[in-house]
Amino acid sequence: MIGARRCLAVVLAAGEGTRMRSDTPKVLHRLAGRTMLGHVLGTVAEAGAEAVVVVVGPGRDDVAAEARRAFPGAEIAVQAERLGTAHAVLAARSAIARGYDDVLVLFADVPLVAPDVLRGLRAALADGNGLVALGFDAADPTGYGRLLVRDGALVAIREHKDATEAERAVTLCFAGPMALDGAGALDLLDRVGCDNAQAEYYLTEAVELARADGRRCAALACPELQAMGVNDRAQLAAAEAAVQARLRVAAMRGGTTLQAPDTVFLSHDTSFGRDVTVEPHVVFGPGVRVEDGAVVHAFSHLEGAQVGPRASVGPYARLRPGASLGRDAKVGNFVEVKSADIGAGAKVSHLTYIGDASVGADANIGAGTVTCNYDGYGKFRTTIGEGAFIGSNASLVAPVTIGRGAYVASGSSVTEDVPEDALAIGRARQTTKAGRAKSLRAERAAAKAARQG
Amino acid sequence: MIGARRCLAVVLAAGEGTRMRSDTPKVLHRLAGRTMLGHVLGTVAEAGAEAVVVVVGPGRDDVAAEARRAFPGAEIAVQAERLGTAHAVLAARSAIARGYDDVLVLFADVPLVAPDVLRGLRAALADGNGLVALGFDAADPTGYGRLLVRDGALVAIREHKDATEAERAVTLCFAGPMALDGAGALDLLDRVGCDNAQAEYYLTEAVELARADGRRCAALACPELQAMGVNDRAQLAAAEAAVQARLRVAAMRGGTTLQAPDTVFLSHDTSFGRDVTVEPHVVFGPGVRVEDGAVVHAFSHLEGAQVGPRASVGPYARLRPGASLGRDAKVGNFVEVKSADIGAGAKVSHLTYIGDASVGADANIGAGTVTCNYDGYGKFRTTIGEGAFIGSNASLVAPVTIGRGAYVASGSSVTEDVPEDALAIGRARQTTKAGRAKSLRAERAAAKAARQG
Amino acid sequence: MIGARRCLAVVLAAGEGTRMRSDTPKVLHRLAGRTMLGHVLGTVAEAGAEAVVVVVGPGRDDVAAEARRAFPGAEIAVQAERLGTAHAVLAARSAIARGYDDVLVLFADVPLVAPDVLRGLRAALADGNGLVALGFDAADPTGYGRLLVRDGALVAIREHKDATEAERAVTLCFAGPMALDGAGALDLLDRVGCDNAQAEYYLTEAVELARADGRRCAALACPELQAMGVNDRAQLAAAEAAVQARLRVAAMRGGTTLQAPDTVFLSHDTSFGRDVTVEPHVVFGPGVRVEDGAVVHAFSHLEGAQVGPRASVGPYARLRPGASLGRDAKVGNFVEVKSADIGAGAKVSHLTYIGDASVGADANIGAGTVTCNYDGYGKFRTTIGEGAFIGSNASLVAPVTIGRGAYVASGSSVTEDVPEDALAIGRARQTTKAGRAKSLRAERAAAKAARQG
Repeated sequence: MIGARRCLAVVLAAGEGTRMRSDTPKVLHRLAGRTMLGHVLGTVAEAGAEAVVVVVGPGRDDVAAEARRAFPGAEIAVQAERLGTAHAVLAARSAIARGYDDVLVLFADVPLVAPDVLRGLRAALADGNGLVALGFDAADPTGYGRLLVRDGALVAIREHKDATEAERAVTLCFAGPMALDGAGALDLLDRVGCDNAQAEYYLTEAVELARADGRRCAALACPELQAMGVNDRAQLAAAEAAVQARLRVAAMRGGTTLQAPDTVFLSHDTSFGRDVTVEPHVVFGPGVRVEDGAVVHAFSHLEGAQVGPRASVGPYARLRPGASLGRDAKVGNFVEVKSADIGAGAKVSHLTYIGDASVGADANIGAGTVTCNYDGYGKFRTTIGEGAFIGSNASLVAPVTIGRGAYVASGSSVTEDVPEDALAIGRARQTTKAGRAKSLRAERAAAKAARQG
Repeated sequence: MIGARRCLAVVLAAGEGTRMRSDTPKVLHRLAGRTMLGHVLGTVAEAGAEAVVVVVGPGRDDVAAEARRAFPGAEIAVQAERLGTAHAVLAARSAIARGYDDVLVLFADVPLVAPDVLRGLRAALADGNGLVALGFDAADPTGYGRLLVRDGALVAIREHKDATEAERAVTLCFAGPMALDGAGALDLLDRVGCDNAQAEYYLTEAVELARADGRRCAALACPELQAMGVNDRAQLAAAEAAVQARLRVAAMRGGTTLQAPDTVFLSHDTSFGRDVTVEPHVVFGPGVRVEDGAVVHAFSHLEGAQVGPRASVGPYARLRPGASLGRDAKVGNFVEVKSADIGAGAKVSHLTYIGDASVGADANIGAGTVTCNYDGYGKFRTTIGEGAFIGSNASLVAPVTIGRGAYVASGSSVTEDVPEDALAIGRARQTTKAGRAKSLRAERAAAKAARQG
Repeated sequence: MIGARRCLAVVLAAGEGTRMRSDTPKVLHRLAGRTMLGHVLGTVAEAGAEAVVVVVGPGRDDVAAEARRAFPGAEIAVQAERLGTAHAVLAARSAIARGYDDVLVLFADVPLVAPDVLRGLRAALADGNGLVALGFDAADPTGYGRLLVRDGALVAIREHKDATEAERAVTLCFAGPMALDGAGALDLLDRVGCDNAQAEYYLTEAVELARADGRRCAALACPELQAMGVNDRAQLAAAEAAVQARLRVAAMRGGTTLQAPDTVFLSHDTSFGRDVTVEPHVVFGPGVRVEDGAVVHAFSHLEGAQVGPRASVGPYARLRPGASLGRDAKVGNFVEVKSADIGAGAKVSHLTYIGDASVGADANIGAGTVTCNYDGYGKFRTTIGEGAFIGSNASLVAPVTIGRGAYVASGSSVTEDVPEDALAIGRARQTTKAGRAKSLRAERAAAKAARQG
């Protein structure tokens, strides 16, 4: 029904967000690894908008940049003065004037509205409404504008303070988002006045103007959670919790076991195969894919990483961007992997840093191994061949290549390439001094006594 | 009352569990470290069943194996076709025919029923009832079968879809488990018909059959949480949460401080002494015992481990199976211990792997120490004597023994035994090249510039 | 109003706390890093008490010591026999006799009462009341004493068991704390009798005695959460949760992002600058200050530490007492810092122990570095100059100084000072044996076969 209709979204992102007490603009605060603005732009794209105007405050290049990143081709309009929501939408005048069937007005700080809700607003326009306002049934409506509906049609949006006793009993409240018939939108917006205490131009007035033109208006309700606005850090945390709950349920429905869902934090784009198990206390940053049958043990932290089928991660594994684990690979406790491929069946079990490296299939990396990838000026690569065996506490000084099946003795510093099947050893021979520990103890105890005077 | 009665439990474990979206059979999914089937079999044992038949689907050797592991001597019966619950119970025909006083019918995917509830069902049989059905008072009974009780007797179990308006107002719902008088059980089950829309044999019909025989039937109610069935991963997570809540309360009642109970995950068999403190964010796998006065700091992960009196674990300690800490021992941050005894008062404070080892009392293991226990083919042991002092970043190449009171210099690789009170040193002498860092910086900066060319 | 009034607080801390099942006295159990007694004494100080008497059980030097630590100058009174609350307060007879305007009676196991509530009690005394009892509106009043109020005045505190049906319908219950007009306090307390079933002297009786003297009494209500008493470990956990919730809200109000507040544990004194971000799963022990713009990543554990502006901590960083990070410093994963300054812009990115050290600005510490600060007898310092570069897996054997701009080669043990701009190397040269890994594999495989013989 809405498929053939052309849709423009105007996203209001100029609010100052003083109550966040932050130097970061409010709409750039993040939920599940994505800015609030990014959430709204992602939703708008899913709902089929072909063009987007993001209305930003003066000098907010950071917001503009995020808008363009999240929705390539997004236009930026600057609202120089803050004169109300209708005024803000009119910052997108030239885009609206290009002519669209549907004009969606959204708020970057109302980030949880789902795509199907936006599609519902558009469908209501397609049904002949001139304006559709998004509402929610408020548990406590105090302070919200009320959506007044008569005979199925929206007749007005009434501010709480202007409402009669009877109107205040209405629990259907205005969430902010609105859809306008593109044909009459500019004309309608231009007629919104500012004859109110704040002398601001309010979008809510458009309802009565549209009806005066003989256009039908409608209200659509979404769950209260989706209507949540974010104005301070406590609301940000509440919105994060709502997003997380949604993501966790989706993961479980898809066949992932989350042993303790409340302790697992997902990103908007975390992707799981079938029969993945995630233990308690795991954090997923953006860009993670975990394939079938893999296990992510407790206290793991993954970001920008691929985990192959039946691979085992953690506990206490940190996979940073560019980490890629092959099938049946194992990355164990206190291991950090960055920009590195860990081959199928390879094991990096403990206390290791693998960065800028490739580890061949079935290689075994001993505890305490470090790829020394940085010399203070550049990053260099370490290549470890299939089936190689790296002894504990080895330092592999990149750039360096360890051949297939090669061995590195524990405690070695390796600075030169090791050929296939060769053994590299770079450590001193052990010497043992009989009785020396006993005399050292005496010396140290004496020194301690001397220090303590 | 039930002490002298002989009891058989028939545990239905043949469900396919499609909604789990898993290659693992539903009843082998785990709660608090134990399979759901294991939970039910453990409960059955506690309730005094002397024999158990587990009814499994065709080819489910994995379920059969788990049944035998969890209840030694469990018999396995295969339900070839899925023709309803009464049909499933009849897969245990030969066992029932041996003659028991009480026949308990349980469901492996209703895993939270407590032992005292099963004893209650048995007591009601001992009181002369022919059949006792387990119910719960449902917050929302929609969809559940209703237990219809008249004058204190159960008269029927009515499917939701067959219920009258008045019957639907009943909130006492059928949980699944049932107890049958062993004497008449087979006769009763054989008479259950399949004259219903699904053409299946339902256990629920047994109520009316028993009454027609003049037997009194009863309903027993348990808390709704115990009646929870697990059909998908969200319900699995909910059941896990219920089990955890139960375990945490028991731990606190016993005199353990859980600073943040919701962030501590226990196993069904976790055992605490008195005055144990557990900080937030700790995971206990199966087989852990923590003794009096020990402290488990945040972010620790324990499995198959013993922690002695007043020992200190973590933060960030991983104790794997076979780890055993003596009294006053300390295992600190980023330390992994596996198959190793840590003696009384010994300290392994940081960044260490101790595997296949024994560490003597009062020994001190420096940061970065690794027991190199694996050579790619076998595991070898490291023995560290009482009061030994291992310097930082040492590699102890097993098999190797460090004598009592011996010292190992930091940075050493130790490949040969170190006698008592001896000092072992296996590292190169330091050489210092004046000004060389400065020239190296210049070289590296030049190389970087060249690379960026 | 209460500013000029002199206030004495009598804190009852003699309860045995049997239900805690602990060898530690109940009032020394901790909430948010502070003992319950410490919480009450901190509140009392904030409410303006100039003197405090803590009433302890016989032989409880540990409670007395904590009282003096938390409120310097606190007097200790011993209640030899346990004969009721009024009897306990009279243990402070000599202090009360010194003459105060306000006498506050508090309970060390009712630790959540807020300072403004105590100020409210005092203000009610200043308004002319002779006695003010603290109450709360109980969700379930069963078992609590009821505050009976008539015409705005408190007329009695009625034990549940003595209450009439009408009185039991009252939900305003007695929380324990009480304020007495200092002038008449001793006289009032001396007249409390023990004519009751337990033959104990109850403070509650003072209400009717005061009224018999023609003094007006009052009830003041606080939120139920603040009235929570702690008698067992489950209540301790509930109180901890309440304290944490309060601390988290305050942090968010101040401009700190807590991505998942329920997984972040704060101390009573945790202090945040503006625009601090705290990821999920972080634990703050006492004495932590985090400055503007710093980020504390997941799974970090901080105690007694300072984190400078825009510094980055974790994930998996452990900052112990005396750790101090300069602006833009970075302490990364699996790093422990203790009694050490990390200079501005310095990086300690992974798998490192820095203890008893100072790290200069912009220095770079490689993975696996250990400051060997302990020789079994004393602790020694490591000093690393500005811009120094420490290679991976280095052992710095303290006392030792690495000069500005110096380099330490990876894998080196450094036992002697390294001058500015010098290079220190303390590792063996690599030797490579062609084909030796292959033959070793054969040997090891043969040995394994022999073992399995």
